[in-house]
Amino acid sequence: MRVLFEELVFATKRSEQIVDITGDVRAIVNRWGVSNGLLVLFSPHATASIVLNEAEPGLERDILNLFRLIAPSDEDYHHNRIDNNAHAHLRSVAFPPYVVIPVRDGKLLLGAWQRIMFVENDGPRARRAVIVQYVGE
Amino acid sequence: MRVLFEELVFATKRSEQIVDITGDVRAIVNRWGVSNGLLVLFSPHATASIVLNEAEPGLERDILNLFRLIAPSDEDYHHNRIDNNAHAHLRSVAFPPYVVIPVRDGKLLLGAWQRIMFVENDGPRARRAVIVQYVGE
Amino acid sequence: MRVLFEELVFATKRSEQIVDITGDVRAIVNRWGVSNGLLVLFSPHATASIVLNEAEPGLERDILNLFRLIAPSDEDYHHNRIDNNAHAHLRSVAFPPYVVIPVRDGKLLLGAWQRIMFVENDGPRARRAVIVQYVGE
Repeated sequence: MRVLFEELVFATKRSEQIVDITGDVRAIVNRWGVSNGLLVLFSPHATASIVLNEAEPGLERDILNLFRLIAPSDEDYHHNRIDNNAHAHLRSVAFPPYVVIPVRDGKLLLGAWQRIMFVENDGPRARRAVIVQYVGE
Repeated sequence: MRVLFEELVFATKRSEQIVDITGDVRAIVNRWGVSNGLLVLFSPHATASIVLNEAEPGLERDILNLFRLIAPSDEDYHHNRIDNNAHAHLRSVAFPPYVVIPVRDGKLLLGAWQRIMFVENDGPRARRAVIVQYVGE
Repeated sequence: MRVLFEELVFATKRSEQIVDITGDVRAIVNRWGVSNGLLVLFSPHATASIVLNEAEPGLERDILNLFRLIAPSDEDYHHNRIDNNAHAHLRSVAFPPYVVIPVRDGKLLLGAWQRIMFVENDGPRARRAVIVQYVGE
């Protein structure tokens, strides 16, 4: 059994931003040379999300609009009496900060249109952004 | 350690449809004869969802209505300038295409009212729909 | 390889309630004395949710308000012709009843502001509430 860890560290540039991490994640998995198991991508942040979907620029705008619809930034939230980022927390609740992906023969079993997208809900900021973990053979 | 894979392949018949896959998944797990571990159900599609809930016909209609509320099909989405299924992508973002279920002594630890439901958001279509993966003893 | 199970059993006191289970989960993981692997927290209920976020009282109110916004309790749901808790089922669909957390050197890799919150959507009731599972070395 192998349990492996790596970390993606990067800075976001806008208050709301999608970062496609698929290439970085694939590079790590290839370097590890793993076979069959599970990949967990986990962001240790209460204001981030990770989603799987198509990296088409129009759709990325639609995805950010969906996040805004679920938790608008200009609501009168209770949390904002002590902070100013309740909307970002709520987006991380509605769109959780992790995904799980099967790995077979060293390949992520993503579909043709599935990319791994980190979503910044409270940027810009430097992030120890995503833990990449493998559990398998 | 055992890491096992199987695939559910089926066609959906409507644009929006819930398919209860609990029986198929249990049959695979029983055939494998596994003991303690994790089951991952993962749909490699950017317009599908998998949810756990009660398979009561009225509730299934309520669930599809919730999906429509989160991402109505008749909005003016950016993605629809190059395609016509942005709502289906957004539903797969809001209701992700995978679930994780513990397995103990060869049994899925689902509650009495939890069924595994594949949700088609962009049908009808033939789908290499769900990857069933076991990681465990 | 080790696959370990434990169960959190508790009663909720209100119809809607957040229960911070982080301390209980950490105590179990410490008692197990595990090293590197995955933790799955899974509630075998079709009306419960588990989320990761900050346990700030104002934010907890905002989170419950978000749940109410997604599925208000006073809608005219189909499921309520045979029951009265469709809103609780729908909240468990929108906010799923499980989370996955990496474990390294026996520590949960949660961020500083991430707590593990069980959300009761259909209380008060006694719950065999959360299965705690470890899969790893």
